[in-house]
Amino acid sequence: MKTSEKNVSIQTLRRLPVYLHYLKSLGGALPAVSATIIAEALGLNDVQVRKDLGSVSGSGRPKKGYVTSELIEELEDFLGCNKHTAAVLLGVGNLGRALLSYHGFSDYGLEIVAAFDSSSKVIGSACGGKIVLPMSDLERVCKSKNVRLGILTVPSANAQTAADELVGHGIKAIWNFAPSVIKVPEGVLVENENLASSLAVLSNHLSV
Amino acid sequence: MKTSEKNVSIQTLRRLPVYLHYLKSLGGALPAVSATIIAEALGLNDVQVRKDLGSVSGSGRPKKGYVTSELIEELEDFLGCNKHTAAVLLGVGNLGRALLSYHGFSDYGLEIVAAFDSSSKVIGSACGGKIVLPMSDLERVCKSKNVRLGILTVPSANAQTAADELVGHGIKAIWNFAPSVIKVPEGVLVENENLASSLAVLSNHLSV
Repeated sequence: MKTSEKNVSIQTLRRLPVYLHYLKSLGGALPAVSATIIAEALGLNDVQVRKDLGSVSGSGRPKKGYVTSELIEELEDFLGCNKHTAAVLLGVGNLGRALLSYHGFSDYGLEIVAAFDSSSKVIGSACGGKIVLPMSDLERVCKSKNVRLGILTVPSANAQTAADELVGHGIKAIWNFAPSVIKVPEGVLVENENLASSLAVLSNHLSV
Repeated sequence: MKTSEKNVSIQTLRRLPVYLHYLKSLGGALPAVSATIIAEALGLNDVQVRKDLGSVSGSGRPKKGYVTSELIEELEDFLGCNKHTAAVLLGVGNLGRALLSYHGFSDYGLEIVAAFDSSSKVIGSACGGKIVLPMSDLERVCKSKNVRLGILTVPSANAQTAADELVGHGIKAIWNFAPSVIKVPEGVLVENENLASSLAVLSNHLSV
């Protein structure tokens, strides 16, 4: 991997999929594209877009900009779209079921290889083409499928325990959808997807 | 509303539901609670927690801290948990269906009053106890139910068009789950919930 990967800011990282999505949505309509065009299309600052793209692509030419197909490839490489990342999902409630049946993740190389739940009501049922497994199978699956990412859609009261299990089985990144703060050791990344927090921001705007 | 509502930072706003969730999870076990206790439980900086709580609550006492039940009430009031916010959801795919059947939103006063889709395959079907309506009904519903929030779970190619329709019908806040940047007029807030961006951060961590 390029050392630049380490040096890209979180904010840049978050924008890269948006650029990629836009470029793919062009469907070849623009053989060449500039940071300015992308910035205008997405309502972003063109200096920022130029900086973002410069940090992942070496193919930009002054004045000429980027060959669109090359830039798409560079973004896909950088984002690991062509790499395979095996993930497990813990907690098959409404949100868990949705993520299991959501097809968009494969575009980014993510495959949810198995889903787990502690409730006998859910274990054994099928969701997104997968049979929900008991937690006792977690260690075996994590090892046999070289799982590196854990998705937490458990009730928040169970989030820390579930996270501890994942970390214990070697998971290095946790995508936490539970509305709670989880503690993990150094070297493990937690990305919180807290819908309640987003809702708080929206409600506050409406109440003002 | 308190003017402080306007002055609370987005980052503070995002943490408030986490505090509220933690306090409720205590189930009355702690009649009184301090910023230090909350900070330790959530792995946050106690100066930050004290500042966050101070901005929404007047009931904290030096040394004594907060009466837990009072702080819960103050957080619920501030977050509008007891207010009713009517929302419409546009785009009844996997994610749309999940949000429609997700029960957590009512804790924050949000009610999805209707769901819309442009596909005849989906229109008329039931999801989360609601019949999916055609887009032609959007204006009528927004007006009759005083809808203030729009949730976008449409394909990203349709996100801007859908957002424009919502804004045209008086929606002041949009919760955008489509992986695209949408442009809105001054005064309309867009909260992006971009799963692809989160995934980019996680994958990058795993690739390093």
